[in-house]
Amino acid sequence: MKIKCVLFDIDDTLYDTSLQMSEARLNAVKAMIEAGLPANIEMAYRVLEEIVKEYGRHYNQHFDRLLERLGLKWNPRVIAAGVTAYRETSSVYLKPYSDTVPTLLKLRESGRKLGVVSEGRAVKQWQKLIQLGIQHLFDRVLVSEEVKEDTVTPEMFRLVLKELGAFPEETVFVGNRLDTDILCANKTGVISIRMRKGEHRVEEPKSPEMAPKYEIGKISEIFGVLKKLEK
Amino acid sequence: MKIKCVLFDIDDTLYDTSLQMSEARLNAVKAMIEAGLPANIEMAYRVLEEIVKEYGRHYNQHFDRLLERLGLKWNPRVIAAGVTAYRETSSVYLKPYSDTVPTLLKLRESGRKLGVVSEGRAVKQWQKLIQLGIQHLFDRVLVSEEVKEDTVTPEMFRLVLKELGAFPEETVFVGNRLDTDILCANKTGVISIRMRKGEHRVEEPKSPEMAPKYEIGKISEIFGVLKKLEK
Repeated sequence: MKIKCVLFDIDDTLYDTSLQMSEARLNAVKAMIEAGLPANIEMAYRVLEEIVKEYGRHYNQHFDRLLERLGLKWNPRVIAAGVTAYRETSSVYLKPYSDTVPTLLKLRESGRKLGVVSEGRAVKQWQKLIQLGIQHLFDRVLVSEEVKEDTVTPEMFRLVLKELGAFPEETVFVGNRLDTDILCANKTGVISIRMRKGEHRVEEPKSPEMAPKYEIGKISEIFGVLKKLEK
Repeated sequence: MKIKCVLFDIDDTLYDTSLQMSEARLNAVKAMIEAGLPANIEMAYRVLEEIVKEYGRHYNQHFDRLLERLGLKWNPRVIAAGVTAYRETSSVYLKPYSDTVPTLLKLRESGRKLGVVSEGRAVKQWQKLIQLGIQHLFDRVLVSEEVKEDTVTPEMFRLVLKELGAFPEETVFVGNRLDTDILCANKTGVISIRMRKGEHRVEEPKSPEMAPKYEIGKISEIFGVLKKLEK
C-alpha cells in the first residue's frame, strides 16, 4: 500500500535536541563559573540537571535555583552569564540533522503529505521549526498545547489524519519516545517508526503497545521502511 | 576638581536601545505578516506599540495580545515568526555606540572609577552588558531591581558612591531620562549629564530639579565636560 502521509516528532527526530541541551547547560555552567560562581563544572552541571528534572524545561529560573542550591546568594551577573551562554549555545546547535532537509524534500517530491505531531508549547515548537528553516515543508503542524495537552495523544493523530485526508494504515509516524510517541501512534493504527536518537535511545518498550513497528537510526533510513511497506 | 567617578545608565546611553526596539518590532510585524497575519505593517506596528505601552516591556505575550486586538484567533505559527524575528533583530542591534568602548577605556585609563546605575531587571541588564561586551569595564553595576525598585532612586547613587569611595561632587552621571536619571543624580548632588539620545531626546525638563548640568549628543563628548569641570 502506498504511504500517503509521513508524520514527525521534532525533538531528537528532526534535530539533535539532546546534544543541544547538554551543550547549552555545559556552556552555561562554564560561563557562570567564569563570571564568579565558586563551583566546579561537573558538580554544578549535575545540580543543574536535577533542577531541570525537578522544575521542568519550561521553568524560567533554573539558574536562580542553582545558586540557591549551592548555598550562594542571588547574583544577577552570574545568572546573566549563564542565560547568555545558554541561549547562544542553544541557537548554534539548533540545526537539522544533515539528512533532515534532503529527506523531507524527497518525501514531498514523491507526492506525500508531511506533518508534525509534537509535544510541548506551540510557540516554542514553531520557533524551532522556523530556526531550523523547515517550517514551509509541512502541510500540518500540531503541538500538544493546541489541544490543551502536555504530551502527544491519540486524538492529535486522528485530528491531523482527518485534516490531511489520510487513513492510519497509509500513514507512518517517526518519533523518539516509546512511552508517548510510539504508544499513541500504535493506538491509532498509524505505522510507528522509532528514531533511536538522544537521551531515550537506550530505552526498551515496557509493554507490547509501546513496541515500534520499525526502528531507524537516522531519518533518511525512512526510505528503506517505505520500500518494505510499499512493495 | 578631579572627577574620580563616572556613572552611566545603559539604555540609550551606552547603546541605541530605541533603534533596537523599533527595528525589532518592525521586523517582528513583517515576519508575522509573511507568516499569514492579515494586517498591514503600519497598523500592526502601531497596535503593537500601544500594547507594549499598556502591558510594559517585560510582559511576555505582546504578540498574543496583538492577534487578539486585531480580532484574530491565536496562531502559534504567526506568533513564533514574530518572536523569532524580534529576538534575532534585537540581538543584531545590541551593539555599543561606535564611541562607547573607546570612551570607557580612556576613562578607565585616566584612573577613574566607572559604574552603571540603571533601571530594570538585573539579569536582563547584565545580559545586555555581556552581549555588548563591556561587562568587565565597570567597577560596580547596580540595577534598580536589586534594591527592589522599578526605576533608579537617589539611594542607588548613594550606595554606589559609598562602595566606590567617591563624593557626589567628584562624580558625574550620564543618562538619557530627565524624570528619573537626571532628577535622581541632581537630588544626590552628582553632576548630571544628559545624553540626548533615543525616544526621550526631544523632552524638556518639567522642573528645575530635572534640568541637567550638562548635555551631550554622544558619549565621547564627556571629555569636553570633564575638561570644563577639572580646569
